[in-house]
Amino acid sequence: MMNSLKPNERLDDLMIKGYEIIQSPGRFCFGMDAILLSSFATVKKNETALDLGSGTGILPILLEAKNEGAHYTGLEIQEESADMARRSVRHNHLQDKVDIITGDIKEASAIFGAASFHVITTNPPYMIGDHGLKNENEALYIARHEVLCTLDDILRESARLLKPKGRFYMIHRPFRLPEILSKMTAAGIEPKRMRLVYPFVDKEPNMVLLEGLRGGNPRMKVEPPLISYEQDGKYTEEMMKIYGMD
Amino acid sequence: MMNSLKPNERLDDLMIKGYEIIQSPGRFCFGMDAILLSSFATVKKNETALDLGSGTGILPILLEAKNEGAHYTGLEIQEESADMARRSVRHNHLQDKVDIITGDIKEASAIFGAASFHVITTNPPYMIGDHGLKNENEALYIARHEVLCTLDDILRESARLLKPKGRFYMIHRPFRLPEILSKMTAAGIEPKRMRLVYPFVDKEPNMVLLEGLRGGNPRMKVEPPLISYEQDGKYTEEMMKIYGMD
Repeated sequence: MMNSLKPNERLDDLMIKGYEIIQSPGRFCFGMDAILLSSFATVKKNETALDLGSGTGILPILLEAKNEGAHYTGLEIQEESADMARRSVRHNHLQDKVDIITGDIKEASAIFGAASFHVITTNPPYMIGDHGLKNENEALYIARHEVLCTLDDILRESARLLKPKGRFYMIHRPFRLPEILSKMTAAGIEPKRMRLVYPFVDKEPNMVLLEGLRGGNPRMKVEPPLISYEQDGKYTEEMMKIYGMD
Repeated sequence: MMNSLKPNERLDDLMIKGYEIIQSPGRFCFGMDAILLSSFATVKKNETALDLGSGTGILPILLEAKNEGAHYTGLEIQEESADMARRSVRHNHLQDKVDIITGDIKEASAIFGAASFHVITTNPPYMIGDHGLKNENEALYIARHEVLCTLDDILRESARLLKPKGRFYMIHRPFRLPEILSKMTAAGIEPKRMRLVYPFVDKEPNMVLLEGLRGGNPRMKVEPPLISYEQDGKYTEEMMKIYGMD
């Protein structure tokens, strides 16, 4: 199996079901945000899930490992990432459960058709527009900045792609919460559940997990704080569980 | 001074500057939300502040105690509450710094004029519409339910009442956050700062503190979690400070 690796690629243990993922450290590696989103989202039996902007396929693979869903699809615009994702799917023998499609989020509803998924997950670019650290490589820059797609694109396409009462799961940055919540409501994906991720109990949150319901009624449950580290820098008990290290 | 008390009223220590407040336990007593809001809001030197729905005047009196502002006004529709507030103002010798006006929030900008305050505070009714516990007394019911004014009324009047770049401070319930943040932006009071109040570190938040800026740009700072109690039920160190018990 190791012969499926290309130069500069490595195989990382996902600490669940023996699954591994192909990553290229100089290009892009998944972070805590992908792990958190994969634990926050749920895909029930017989449901289908689509991950928008799937990168090297971390979300579909982890969701498959953690849920009883019928099928998982990853949509990724960068062919090199999509190719790595496909090889990881084969490496874990998940060809029957996970598909990776090369394509543009902005055209997702045209690619898959309206009301075609029960669940959408997305770990989109956090930064507004085309600015920030210009010394990042292209793959990283596209993953972090709204150059190829915006929050509006994601919400518009998600509203079309979700079946009625379908669920939308996203991880994003707290500083954009007013815009995110307003635009979710405007898109017809009502925010129903939110959890803030605080690195330490006395620090500002650095991530926010959101669940929306297509056609849901207004009333959002805000969950207990998710705290990443103890004061001594070790993962909290809950983070250990999320990472599969308990 | 005690002879300013009417039957069923009592004088409570505010644990700051020796101030006391007249309350009627069978009617309405201020809660942790008023204390939290008075610590979250700031009124700078030479600034004027208006509290919308001031009840027995807890916010103007505490804000005066904690800030260097020029003047504080409380607007309250229930004459019985406004009268108690006025007597508390006199009791604390704050007639030069605090005014209590009997009037309707829905007409606040007509009463005071447009762009007339640097700061607005409000601890409005949390519950939507005219339902809930019908066995509450009228004063309590009006304080808790949107029967006499709604969030829309408060935001519309606040946007008119605030000077450009004036600051809006509100405490509310987390379950209404999507609506609150959307409507603040729509009213031209951009959410700039938010703090969630969690009763315990592992529980859902029961209150949210918000600061908005009239005419501000989108970007909200989410602050560290404010946790009310230690696991043993004692106030946390921060809550002790907020209550003046440190």
